[in-house]
Amino acid sequence: MAYEKGDGKSVVIALGGNALGNTPEEQLQLVEETAVHIVDMIAEGINVVVSHGNGPQVGMISNAFSEACGHDSSIPEMPFPECGAMSQGYIGYQLSQALLGELKRRSILRSTACVITQTVVYPEDPAFQHPTKPVGPFLTEDEAKARAAETGATYAEDAGRGWRMMVASPKPQRIVELDAIKDLMDDGYVVIAAGGGGVPVFEYDDSYHGVPAVIDKDRTSAKLAAGFDADMLVILTAVEKVAINFGKPDQQEIDHMTISEARAYIEEGQFAPGSMLPKVQACIEYLTEYPKGTALITSLEKAAQGLRGETGTIITAG
Amino acid sequence: MAYEKGDGKSVVIALGGNALGNTPEEQLQLVEETAVHIVDMIAEGINVVVSHGNGPQVGMISNAFSEACGHDSSIPEMPFPECGAMSQGYIGYQLSQALLGELKRRSILRSTACVITQTVVYPEDPAFQHPTKPVGPFLTEDEAKARAAETGATYAEDAGRGWRMMVASPKPQRIVELDAIKDLMDDGYVVIAAGGGGVPVFEYDDSYHGVPAVIDKDRTSAKLAAGFDADMLVILTAVEKVAINFGKPDQQEIDHMTISEARAYIEEGQFAPGSMLPKVQACIEYLTEYPKGTALITSLEKAAQGLRGETGTIITAG
Repeated sequence: MAYEKGDGKSVVIALGGNALGNTPEEQLQLVEETAVHIVDMIAEGINVVVSHGNGPQVGMISNAFSEACGHDSSIPEMPFPECGAMSQGYIGYQLSQALLGELKRRSILRSTACVITQTVVYPEDPAFQHPTKPVGPFLTEDEAKARAAETGATYAEDAGRGWRMMVASPKPQRIVELDAIKDLMDDGYVVIAAGGGGVPVFEYDDSYHGVPAVIDKDRTSAKLAAGFDADMLVILTAVEKVAINFGKPDQQEIDHMTISEARAYIEEGQFAPGSMLPKVQACIEYLTEYPKGTALITSLEKAAQGLRGETGTIITAG
Repeated sequence: MAYEKGDGKSVVIALGGNALGNTPEEQLQLVEETAVHIVDMIAEGINVVVSHGNGPQVGMISNAFSEACGHDSSIPEMPFPECGAMSQGYIGYQLSQALLGELKRRSILRSTACVITQTVVYPEDPAFQHPTKPVGPFLTEDEAKARAAETGATYAEDAGRGWRMMVASPKPQRIVELDAIKDLMDDGYVVIAAGGGGVPVFEYDDSYHGVPAVIDKDRTSAKLAAGFDADMLVILTAVEKVAINFGKPDQQEIDHMTISEARAYIEEGQFAPGSMLPKVQACIEYLTEYPKGTALITSLEKAAQGLRGETGTIITAG
């Protein structure tokens, strides 16, 4: 063991999109801010695995290759799983560097490790029957139909802006690098892993294969947290607390809810699909697999306070 | 510890350019081959850290962004260090996947971990005074001079084919993720690290910063191997053995040489700069830092045999 592990809880922190940026410069600046908040938690003895989304970044990488290979024959088309792996390298490098700097400024003797992560999904996942997530560049209808015929991928019209490849968002079933991530955390490292939910792969008896798909990063983070009995899953977003009757006069922030209360709110349609709903669902998945755990939804800025129980929305099994 | 470590030697294997490919499909096929040879060594109990080059890949990524951002304003210029991190993610993902498949086929209960790696270089390294490595896209003289004025980077005419950014190839001084790489190997993982020699960074009292430069991957592998007292450094290349009087009637393959014999051959100009010379020099650097070690230069295909002492060129301190 190279570093002394913190004496506090083990926590998987899923960063929201606002923790990263749209250009390399913007992102380098934002991750510095992000690092301050993460190191606030580390300074209190928390052992963290940091996961993050990659939507804008993987889209940008995929678009760059698609655009470039149309103009320069020396540049190949880049498959979507490989673009995902690139985005993990790119974001992980910047996050790692920012965290190392912040640890150094506070004289905290810990180091970081960013692990390229693959996540097993099932070919029989019903999501593959109805790919709904647009990824990659905008194409004309003719281009899209030609590519569909060539590759078998699904293309569809996206919100009047052009045709795009549509991929599935299957359920994460197993994180290939789970043990490595856990061992690194146990050895005292600040681990960056499961970026973009992990590169989705099919696992066969004799091989693994990348799949053009996306995985919800909060669901992968839930799987990761449950996988090594992490004390807490922390999902960071733009708001300090989850609210019911959101945006109405009787809006009410929630300090604590149980799984069954959360499910009742979901039944009532209290949480917006594509926004708070998948985050609450990810917390339920974690707590169902690991009922001793505690899930917290809050903002990046309030995360350290939230871990001390002072704010945010806590979800527990019972 | 999640896996049982092999009972054999600890080895840093630096893959040559022929172990990877120029397009994602070609590379996926080549890394399958590469994985067979690496797992041959693992099957004999060897504990490996695999490093690799990234010249063609980082060039392709840098070119893709450069080309794309000229045509599509939504795509940013991508700094060279970030391109390096992307190449580590891309290559590491494919290598990791191929190794996992091969381990599975042989029912070897080991797993892989690819660690995004940063390598500290010194700002006062004399290499920065004379940047000699062309990277990124070919530009016109006007474009190159405009960019030089804007960014302060060096541009020069490259072999009659156009103007390119010239970067330095400084000496690797410290591998930031050294401890994580060592701990993972000790925990039984097949580690992929230091891709492309690591992303070069300057280390200041309060921060780290990426530098547009390249690092010789064999030198970083040497630093890595010496850094954790690896029993062996294995540099893989296109030939089975190092030769003197190469290409002449009296060409002679070398089975074993000491550092001082190697230095004498270097004095005689026996090894080609940019080819065998830097490999032999990397071995000397490793053995100087860790004289108990053994360096081996051979081909990927002969690596397992070489580790058994049956072929290749062995270099030792005395």
